[in-house]
Amino acid sequence: MAYFDSASSAPLHPVARQALLAALDEGWADPARLYREGRRARLLLDAARETAAEAAGCRPDELVFTSSGTRAVHDGIAGALAGRRRVGRHLVVSAVEHSCVLQSAAAHAADGGTVTEVGTDRAGRVAPGAYAAALRPDTALACLQSANHEVGTEQPVAQSAQDCRAAGVPLLVDAAQSLAWGPVPGDWSLLTASAHKWGGPPGVGLLAVRKGVRFAPRGPADERESGRAPGFPDVPAVVAAAAALRAVRQEAEREAARLRALVERIRARVPELVPETEVVGDPVRRLPHLVTFSCLYVDGEALLHELDRAGFSVSSGSSCTASTLVPSHVLRAMGVLSEGNVRVSLPPGTAEAEVERFLGVLPGAVAEVRARLGAPAPADGAPGGRRSPAARPGGEESAGDEPVLTVDALGRRCPVPVIELAKVIGDVPDGAVIAVLADDAAARLDIPAWCAMRGQEYLGERPAEGGTSYRVRRRA
Amino acid sequence: MAYFDSASSAPLHPVARQALLAALDEGWADPARLYREGRRARLLLDAARETAAEAAGCRPDELVFTSSGTRAVHDGIAGALAGRRRVGRHLVVSAVEHSCVLQSAAAHAADGGTVTEVGTDRAGRVAPGAYAAALRPDTALACLQSANHEVGTEQPVAQSAQDCRAAGVPLLVDAAQSLAWGPVPGDWSLLTASAHKWGGPPGVGLLAVRKGVRFAPRGPADERESGRAPGFPDVPAVVAAAAALRAVRQEAEREAARLRALVERIRARVPELVPETEVVGDPVRRLPHLVTFSCLYVDGEALLHELDRAGFSVSSGSSCTASTLVPSHVLRAMGVLSEGNVRVSLPPGTAEAEVERFLGVLPGAVAEVRARLGAPAPADGAPGGRRSPAARPGGEESAGDEPVLTVDALGRRCPVPVIELAKVIGDVPDGAVIAVLADDAAARLDIPAWCAMRGQEYLGERPAEGGTSYRVRRRA
Repeated sequence: MAYFDSASSAPLHPVARQALLAALDEGWADPARLYREGRRARLLLDAARETAAEAAGCRPDELVFTSSGTRAVHDGIAGALAGRRRVGRHLVVSAVEHSCVLQSAAAHAADGGTVTEVGTDRAGRVAPGAYAAALRPDTALACLQSANHEVGTEQPVAQSAQDCRAAGVPLLVDAAQSLAWGPVPGDWSLLTASAHKWGGPPGVGLLAVRKGVRFAPRGPADERESGRAPGFPDVPAVVAAAAALRAVRQEAEREAARLRALVERIRARVPELVPETEVVGDPVRRLPHLVTFSCLYVDGEALLHELDRAGFSVSSGSSCTASTLVPSHVLRAMGVLSEGNVRVSLPPGTAEAEVERFLGVLPGAVAEVRARLGAPAPADGAPGGRRSPAARPGGEESAGDEPVLTVDALGRRCPVPVIELAKVIGDVPDGAVIAVLADDAAARLDIPAWCAMRGQEYLGERPAEGGTSYRVRRRA
Repeated sequence: MAYFDSASSAPLHPVARQALLAALDEGWADPARLYREGRRARLLLDAARETAAEAAGCRPDELVFTSSGTRAVHDGIAGALAGRRRVGRHLVVSAVEHSCVLQSAAAHAADGGTVTEVGTDRAGRVAPGAYAAALRPDTALACLQSANHEVGTEQPVAQSAQDCRAAGVPLLVDAAQSLAWGPVPGDWSLLTASAHKWGGPPGVGLLAVRKGVRFAPRGPADERESGRAPGFPDVPAVVAAAAALRAVRQEAEREAARLRALVERIRARVPELVPETEVVGDPVRRLPHLVTFSCLYVDGEALLHELDRAGFSVSSGSSCTASTLVPSHVLRAMGVLSEGNVRVSLPPGTAEAEVERFLGVLPGAVAEVRARLGAPAPADGAPGGRRSPAARPGGEESAGDEPVLTVDALGRRCPVPVIELAKVIGDVPDGAVIAVLADDAAARLDIPAWCAMRGQEYLGERPAEGGTSYRVRRRA
């Protein structure tokens, strides 16, 4: 068995397990109490706070422990927005933030606030200039992740923090994916993170709020954790989380180099081994342990199932693996293929042999799923697909471009609409237009992405009875 | 060492520790994932939910795990209020609820809602009739604890649940202190609890919402736990919490009988062993493991320190042990003495010998603190103090009642104002009035309580320069 989904949750670090066991004995009591069990818990909590603050790059009294990374984000954003309500109610986020940030943004918008989502390039990276341009006089808060959780792309947080300072806007950095690897660079104002991402136990998040940042906690008052995280503190889990963070940081440099080499190998080899595959995310400015690729004509859920049978646990941003029927908002914002999406995130200590075994298993797993779906044979010029400068994502249609062929994929889910398109594209003359009727949300992303990968011209979409009509011009 | 504060937090049950260790190995992954580690976590989570639901007396799909009892209360109250916003914005609570309920009520009032606090008798018990009378056509929610956390008094939840049903109002029962001992009786609508109170780990709360109860979760949307508890679930802690709940329930009947006998012994012996002491809370309808008493002329913090030195960890509702300078709202609502307050809550397994040792140590500890404070010698008729029917808490003054003596206790904290009063009461003639000038918040509770205990007549209070003037008429 190989668990390659540490970006979802890392297995408990051995140091965390040991610290947890010790703290269950020593730190179970209420740290607010005056008797010895309480004082002991208090000492452990204070020491954990110092350790975590050092790793986060802030003062201990700037950091509180929350019950999860999600709570840190929800409560951090709400508190920062409320603290600057007099300035205004404008919130800036990137389009590729973790869903908990976007949930907070949606709640803010529903409550009458305004939100600007800053887009990314095709690698998932926010342009610092575009981010700075979104800041306004009434901007209460800006949020930017340190690195993306689905594709590994690092964001320009140091530059954006500087731009935010210049604009007088606090920047909240969601560091959930990167804190294991090092402190967040730059002069951020708020920081959030989640312990189970770095090998700590679940149930612990971090929220750091620098001195001087206006912050007004929402919800009922509670005296715990400086009034910023209500409820009885889980001291044993906090102690374990801090111990794990210190431990992974001590190993970070060496382990980052080792995993980065393994990730580079996957990035290079997958397109060679598996035809019609796109590796996504910034090739250089990226997390060391995470790599994501998408495979044409593949049902993500079926591929995950095949890989699971072969002993590999990975995750996917394909809509067909989620309950929502909508592909990952990250892949959508990047404008890349969502079907057959696979995220590999290697936990510390991953053996080279396991990665080799994964590379050995993957081609057969993909081929199996493709065969089952009746996918077309690999295109000429494969492996790797090809990009044509003529491809125009979101291109234009002229009045005379009536489709010579319509593919009815209504009621069929990803990746079937794209497979049906690929099957017939060779049947029409060069320059002719094909329409694909589909009602699956992934088609909106995957048909243009397929065109970009295969050098076909995407013309655009029109409402159609029962769904949407996507128009593609054949470019031979 | 004897830890007698299980009402704050119980030591981890051995079964919980074992379950936690196993679940750290088996249940660390994301239960929403499709691979085997995720499926395994899901199975554990589902099983824990069934166990907890059975213990709570609800269906598994009515119960979610929160990150603490406080979060269960905060989010349960907010969701129930929002779900019935169209009905109205009136909230009913008892005056002796846990602070997290009263915090929610205060937040609701600050947000424009209205709150009725239903008082209790001197034993801390809510009268069902008074509670039912507080329900109005615009009442969105009513909250009543199953048993009080400071004095152990059980509340009439079954009757109140029936009254609430009749009025069409959902009743939320905070069962934090009682769930270890048995299910909450009656037809409640929502229920909250906290695992570390029953020997589970910290970081786990329960929120049950019966089918048909209108509930609209507040805050950013999140798909976890039926949308009612955001954030990555702490499956190992949840598994341990459920295992501990099942274990304590299996032992509950036998252990309740055993601890009840020990508590009865404390209730009977403390007034015999320690002069000028009042045992508080309902003598019959009470939790089996908890007993509370207050000692005149004693500084609660000093007494806790003495007991800690002697190896006993207990808690106190005295203001001098808290950071707020205000005595426990529970003792205030009951109208009982707050100074020298001690709560003893015995964890399961407490040995009889430990209780005997406590009873052996207590008189010396109290005497030591009293001597240090220069407290008066025990009154005639001690031990136990005496109650006079002439005592009129909140009594009246007539125009001619000018004090013959004024005790200036401004700037002196509890229990000094009461000690100074007691020292001079014998110096004035029968029927004469003494004024005590004090600015300590505890004086407002403790001077009338002292009068009630010592058969003196409390006349009332007046604003005075720098504080308040409390008037007492000597009754010889």
